[in-house]
Amino acid sequence: MAAGPVAERLAALELVDHHCHGAVTDDLDRAGFEALLTEGEAWPGVSPFDSPVGLAVRRHCAPLLGLPRHSPAGVYLARRSELGAAEVNRRFLRAARTGAFCVDTGYAPHRVTAPAELAEAAGARAYEVVRLEGVAEAVAAGGVEPDAYARAFRTAAWEAVRRPGVVAVKSVAAYRTGFGLDPARPSPAEVTEAARRWLARGGGRLDDPVLVRHLLWTAVDLGRPLQLHAGFGDSDIRLHRADPTLLTDWLHLTAGTIPVLLLHCWPYQRQAAYLCAVFERVYLDVGLTLHHVGPARAGAVLAEALEITPFRKLLHSSDAYGLAEFHHLGALAFRQGLAGLLQERLDADELSLPDALRLVRWVGRDNARRVYRLPGGPADDG
Amino acid sequence: MAAGPVAERLAALELVDHHCHGAVTDDLDRAGFEALLTEGEAWPGVSPFDSPVGLAVRRHCAPLLGLPRHSPAGVYLARRSELGAAEVNRRFLRAARTGAFCVDTGYAPHRVTAPAELAEAAGARAYEVVRLEGVAEAVAAGGVEPDAYARAFRTAAWEAVRRPGVVAVKSVAAYRTGFGLDPARPSPAEVTEAARRWLARGGGRLDDPVLVRHLLWTAVDLGRPLQLHAGFGDSDIRLHRADPTLLTDWLHLTAGTIPVLLLHCWPYQRQAAYLCAVFERVYLDVGLTLHHVGPARAGAVLAEALEITPFRKLLHSSDAYGLAEFHHLGALAFRQGLAGLLQERLDADELSLPDALRLVRWVGRDNARRVYRLPGGPADDG
Amino acid sequence: MAAGPVAERLAALELVDHHCHGAVTDDLDRAGFEALLTEGEAWPGVSPFDSPVGLAVRRHCAPLLGLPRHSPAGVYLARRSELGAAEVNRRFLRAARTGAFCVDTGYAPHRVTAPAELAEAAGARAYEVVRLEGVAEAVAAGGVEPDAYARAFRTAAWEAVRRPGVVAVKSVAAYRTGFGLDPARPSPAEVTEAARRWLARGGGRLDDPVLVRHLLWTAVDLGRPLQLHAGFGDSDIRLHRADPTLLTDWLHLTAGTIPVLLLHCWPYQRQAAYLCAVFERVYLDVGLTLHHVGPARAGAVLAEALEITPFRKLLHSSDAYGLAEFHHLGALAFRQGLAGLLQERLDADELSLPDALRLVRWVGRDNARRVYRLPGGPADDG
Repeated sequence: MAAGPVAERLAALELVDHHCHGAVTDDLDRAGFEALLTEGEAWPGVSPFDSPVGLAVRRHCAPLLGLPRHSPAGVYLARRSELGAAEVNRRFLRAARTGAFCVDTGYAPHRVTAPAELAEAAGARAYEVVRLEGVAEAVAAGGVEPDAYARAFRTAAWEAVRRPGVVAVKSVAAYRTGFGLDPARPSPAEVTEAARRWLARGGGRLDDPVLVRHLLWTAVDLGRPLQLHAGFGDSDIRLHRADPTLLTDWLHLTAGTIPVLLLHCWPYQRQAAYLCAVFERVYLDVGLTLHHVGPARAGAVLAEALEITPFRKLLHSSDAYGLAEFHHLGALAFRQGLAGLLQERLDADELSLPDALRLVRWVGRDNARRVYRLPGGPADDG
Repeated sequence: MAAGPVAERLAALELVDHHCHGAVTDDLDRAGFEALLTEGEAWPGVSPFDSPVGLAVRRHCAPLLGLPRHSPAGVYLARRSELGAAEVNRRFLRAARTGAFCVDTGYAPHRVTAPAELAEAAGARAYEVVRLEGVAEAVAAGGVEPDAYARAFRTAAWEAVRRPGVVAVKSVAAYRTGFGLDPARPSPAEVTEAARRWLARGGGRLDDPVLVRHLLWTAVDLGRPLQLHAGFGDSDIRLHRADPTLLTDWLHLTAGTIPVLLLHCWPYQRQAAYLCAVFERVYLDVGLTLHHVGPARAGAVLAEALEITPFRKLLHSSDAYGLAEFHHLGALAFRQGLAGLLQERLDADELSLPDALRLVRWVGRDNARRVYRLPGGPADDG
Repeated sequence: MAAGPVAERLAALELVDHHCHGAVTDDLDRAGFEALLTEGEAWPGVSPFDSPVGLAVRRHCAPLLGLPRHSPAGVYLARRSELGAAEVNRRFLRAARTGAFCVDTGYAPHRVTAPAELAEAAGARAYEVVRLEGVAEAVAAGGVEPDAYARAFRTAAWEAVRRPGVVAVKSVAAYRTGFGLDPARPSPAEVTEAARRWLARGGGRLDDPVLVRHLLWTAVDLGRPLQLHAGFGDSDIRLHRADPTLLTDWLHLTAGTIPVLLLHCWPYQRQAAYLCAVFERVYLDVGLTLHHVGPARAGAVLAEALEITPFRKLLHSSDAYGLAEFHHLGALAFRQGLAGLLQERLDADELSLPDALRLVRWVGRDNARRVYRLPGGPADDG
């Protein structure tokens, strides 16, 4: 890992993790742990530990459990069980040295820490991100007439974002239809008709293209920052439809409205960077990716993400879900990757130290404070 | 080139080249050699030697002909002629230190070594891969009624895969229609109708979308591993339609059936890696690419291919065709590229030596043994 | 920056910048300068200086104004004003050490140097590139009947390319429709019908798909090299439609006719490289990109662009517009990036010094001389 003043500043900086999920609160057996270790599934005869993220866990998480670096998976899991979920979560969440977490509470197939619990375990603040598909699906589940759907969804979304601690909304449109949508705001009649079809089949997973568009436009009306899943995810994604440049027409139509934060992005980080460079309100992160590729490749991915991205436009997130290891690893890969690439540029005199330190502060903390209007920023913004 | 224990292990390991073709058995004049050196054509006034693969041949192949490194093209070709094709092939095939070759016998515009000849010249074993488009086109050429085509193709494919030494089938659907196909299995009536159109124009190149889908589903029925050309190839490809994530729906529909091996993949190696990470039965290689980019860039391409790929999912292939130089260069670029990136991670303590050596063994040999059930694996699989 | 014989040769070599624009001749205030610094717009609260290209300007351009490296933006701009546009342009254009500029004169929202002025300021030669969309739009603005449009455009284009100093034509089809066009030459009746629609709405921006196709085919008839914008640009582009492999069918249909030069290409430089490797008359550059990513990443982008590209197929361009800083930075990033990657290969003995020096000469100068038949080449082509 790069040493030097940038690495030191990054080590000392309390990050903002602008997009993550809770950590599982129950103890996990091997199958349970391995299922959370991969974006795929756990397959017979192939351990998810035999992957870049598995190596990174054994290398960087084992020492926090009091084990040698590169401990075998079995040893790691035994020690993890011995310590218990609460202690394990506490250790990793504290090790992340993250001052604030913005927690997407809309995806939780397991029992996971609520934002307040996460904050408590981490010794940090936590804010909430409302997943709009969840709001819409709850409206359908609660019973609504097709012609009342748009209003009911809008009301429910407004109620959700007005709760204390909510700082943003999120959409997984990339999963549901991909970004190759008609960019125009759908008419009320179109929405009613689409709601009729959806409700007739009992609601559930919201994947109607008209309703997904309507959801994105409702996000614009809410006026809150909108996090958008882009690129890398589980097998439910169609990766080529999650290229964020497919959203360009919609970004033109909504220019001057809400901040749009492109999450993950890999392998489209350059495409996302292009959007950040030309649209005032577009931001990106390479969360999820960084712990999956591990510290060995985090710098390479960040270097692509930063090729043309204005320094006010890159944010840090872990997108950790389930394993508190990932809250830690996401932060660690981000710190090591960024320190490595900045130090190299310092050494080549392509960058001055004050510029490097400012970039670190912005990307690691202040850009998120500014977009989400979190305490601490933008006052100490300089 | 990286030295150290990983490079040593790679040097000592007899690879499995899970996808290649034969070497030309006739002596080649300059025009003939240059035509095989490029995926394009040989153009007036531009020597294919003036390219990354040309440099790699002059650097890494010249010494095996007893010439200095970086010998000029003319000198190289003269010496090659002097030695004769049989001796040249023998030298390069032996230098590849490859224990087993899986040979696609379905593409041979030149006279090339049959698998047994390749094995003999290399001092190795050879297995056969059956190209399904060739089987289908032979069925058409042999004369068949449209409503008998599906059965005749299936029978011919079964006969082909039952021959001794056949370990897999292959499709070049990427060339014929691209991967943006309707993923569903076509109905018998659809197949008959499509066969009627195809046979009416005299058969030949199979590029009807219904028949290509039918071919892919027939591969599922055969139960053998299916190699799929993806990405990089000659000018006959439409590269953007060879992005393997376009196959995602089909991979969902066929989940739990046959292994699918994505060949070449460049420049979509990250997209292919995503599929490997989320689908149990998807594998990838960066064959063809490695010798075309040469050892100077092989590590960079491999690093992208390995960013999130489970270590059981990457295989080695040369995809060498025609020039035995490529069987050698593919192996050499693979060894050097992989050694370089692993050594860097060892040096950074991101990887332990036992893990590195295991990864080398798996990727270089045992993953292929396992998928194709070749002798030697998975017994010594650990 | 890499030292050594390759860097020295590159420093001494007078480049050909085969695609650029003029430099602004008026003095620029901060807002004016910042607007030219970014492919986006200047946004409130976010300085375009806080970006990779902003760092590169402060690092590499400040010394040419007599300022310390990494001078703050305010200091830089004050000094720039003090010197005045003419002196600033002269300094940067001379620093580029470029012997010949091919200037696209069809885009000039500001008052910029005409080719002769640019040549004078730089102490170089300048040639002209005719933007065909501008020719077509002028024909419409001048008044033409729909059924006379094709002939009038053709005549105007012929007149434009016959002017002294014109060496090529250019199209921004990537901006207007993207490359996913029907590749076939449109019929006269189709062109007339499309012209009727276009002229009925008063002409202006040419973005009718039939007329864009007609423009590309007219370029073929003109017989001059055709520069095509590909990939990276401002927010008016739809990046995913500017992937040059979408043009493959058209390249097949026009094979053996005019040279096609793919400009910029990022993030599709590998896709462009594929086209260069398989089509005789396709060339590429990574202009615009190199100064936006800066010298810190220029080598990485060039390394991807060169992975499989024949050495006769890569050209240098700055694509500088407006700021003479970019004519300089484009050349500097090209020199540093190329020197770095070649030196690394020399050090690894993957490349011989004579081969490296030849590659430098070709890519930096002779490939452009050859394609555009500029004086100096191909006589000293060896």
